[in-house]
Amino acid sequence: MKPRDRFLSALAGKNLDYPPVWLMRQAGRYLPEYRALKENYSFLQMVQSPELAAEVTLQPIQRYAFDAAIIFSDILVIPEAMGLPYDFPSGGGIRMERAIQSAADIAALSPDAVTDRLRYVFDALQIVRKELNNETALIGFSGAPWTLAAYMLEGGSSRDFAKAKALFYTEPKLYHQLLEKITAAVIAYLEEQIKAGADAVQLFDSWAGILSYRSYYEMSGQYLRQIVKAIKGKAPVIVFAKGAHQWLELLISADADALGFDWSLPISAFRDKAPAAMAVQGNLDPAILLSNPETIRAEIKAILKSMENKAGWIFNLGHGILPATPLDNVSVLLQTIRKE
Amino acid sequence: MKPRDRFLSALAGKNLDYPPVWLMRQAGRYLPEYRALKENYSFLQMVQSPELAAEVTLQPIQRYAFDAAIIFSDILVIPEAMGLPYDFPSGGGIRMERAIQSAADIAALSPDAVTDRLRYVFDALQIVRKELNNETALIGFSGAPWTLAAYMLEGGSSRDFAKAKALFYTEPKLYHQLLEKITAAVIAYLEEQIKAGADAVQLFDSWAGILSYRSYYEMSGQYLRQIVKAIKGKAPVIVFAKGAHQWLELLISADADALGFDWSLPISAFRDKAPAAMAVQGNLDPAILLSNPETIRAEIKAILKSMENKAGWIFNLGHGILPATPLDNVSVLLQTIRKE
Repeated sequence: MKPRDRFLSALAGKNLDYPPVWLMRQAGRYLPEYRALKENYSFLQMVQSPELAAEVTLQPIQRYAFDAAIIFSDILVIPEAMGLPYDFPSGGGIRMERAIQSAADIAALSPDAVTDRLRYVFDALQIVRKELNNETALIGFSGAPWTLAAYMLEGGSSRDFAKAKALFYTEPKLYHQLLEKITAAVIAYLEEQIKAGADAVQLFDSWAGILSYRSYYEMSGQYLRQIVKAIKGKAPVIVFAKGAHQWLELLISADADALGFDWSLPISAFRDKAPAAMAVQGNLDPAILLSNPETIRAEIKAILKSMENKAGWIFNLGHGILPATPLDNVSVLLQTIRKE
Repeated sequence: MKPRDRFLSALAGKNLDYPPVWLMRQAGRYLPEYRALKENYSFLQMVQSPELAAEVTLQPIQRYAFDAAIIFSDILVIPEAMGLPYDFPSGGGIRMERAIQSAADIAALSPDAVTDRLRYVFDALQIVRKELNNETALIGFSGAPWTLAAYMLEGGSSRDFAKAKALFYTEPKLYHQLLEKITAAVIAYLEEQIKAGADAVQLFDSWAGILSYRSYYEMSGQYLRQIVKAIKGKAPVIVFAKGAHQWLELLISADADALGFDWSLPISAFRDKAPAAMAVQGNLDPAILLSNPETIRAEIKAILKSMENKAGWIFNLGHGILPATPLDNVSVLLQTIRKE
């Protein structure tokens, strides 16, 4: 079975001898070949150059033959394309040129620019698609509307995104105007990624977990649902709402083709509760990959055992692979899953 | 009914006409009288001077007549007393003088020093106890063992505390040696706080939520349980395990007198699932206090309605009050809860 077919079969809800596997941030700092490139180019240079982005995307496939590649990019390319440039100050975190503060700021954002200005992402996808042939699956992605809005309203990183949340409570009309604009941009962006060769797309709702049960659907979930509806039939959509798995029923209501999970609860519990047609993705704690082969094997085998005979499962970490991960530990992960 | 009696009655599982209320970080930056003091003293100076700590502790009681005061201090006083000084670098976060890296480092930590070196906390408690008379309850607190270990193993703040988690997977014996030592220190520290006048104590497990379902009890929960067992009969213990409410059954197993909750699920759902003898505390999202009186009233009334006729409830925020909170909004909160 080709890696791409394995990935798409799991996403379609099939029961397989072993799950397909890819790792969030698999193209990244734990790879020496990535660090070598990074000595010559900044992160944003690599994101914005189709050739470099394609090269970085392919690095983990060449080394490990994961079942899917995910395009090397950043969730903040959408705010950037809409008119909010950002950088990474030396103290850490993300800093945007300015924050969205008024109705005029929102009116000035142009969602239509996204498909033009992010041509470099689509070009990178086309290069990767060609290189992968139809052997390995290719995943496109976008930040989820709430997560993008959170950065845009704070003007960068924040511990609690309280200012962003406060706008929803204080000026809900303004909040929804912004979210509608971002949602339109995300839909256009994902459609172009699919045209450029993405087999599936993932929505990263990295800050879903700081919302409240009462506000989540209105602030985030309804927009995920709109995106899924617009993309339905074009490519499967995976929703990864970090830290928000306590309201599984609200996540399910977005009607995505698959839900990604962190390690907060056993993936078998999620599998049992999600509808059969909805695939699940996850959920090893990336910190475990810092340990040793015995521990890694034991932890993965426990997950495999809990998922025995359960259909529609893509193996992944519960969050991005850590830069300090030893290369051999990734091999151990793959060998254990593939029963090699 | 005196505020102190209202607080202790709720903690003992009584059903009241309205819940007692205090707010995490109620002594802090949203208060102009706190900011005025802060112009003359550093945070650590205020923590380490009994007179200043007592003054800061009393500020929100004088202004708002909360039902309980919580001693102004910091969770990291325990690592500091054990030999790991820390500061707050200008870039943000916490930096310790060094990280715990070996068995020798752990052996060098002295849990016995805690009761001597933290005399300033006990002195502050005695001053506050006297000032409050028996009118208002007084809460002591400590960081939970896992949360303290996380800082000690990383040598300060971290996004994911992956190094701290990796020790558990790589050298579990060493991990548990460290946790046992911290647990002994926490027990001794809480006992002294109770002797100095604390009516109840709260354990802050701020980083519980980044653990996995599989590791939580072993890494954190079992130590909370040990502490609760040692303190039982001396004063009620409240456990606040931030972001870990998806494994409520594991939190319940620590057998605390009360569980504090963030806003991730409705407090009424927690109330219904927790044993009747276990009080619940929470759970308004502090971001709501940045909005306006109408919104604050509506959100609090929704919580009050959901908790109608439910016993054993202390009103609180789901996390610390935000520095940008307008003073009048806190008055609105109190008036709404107290039906004034």
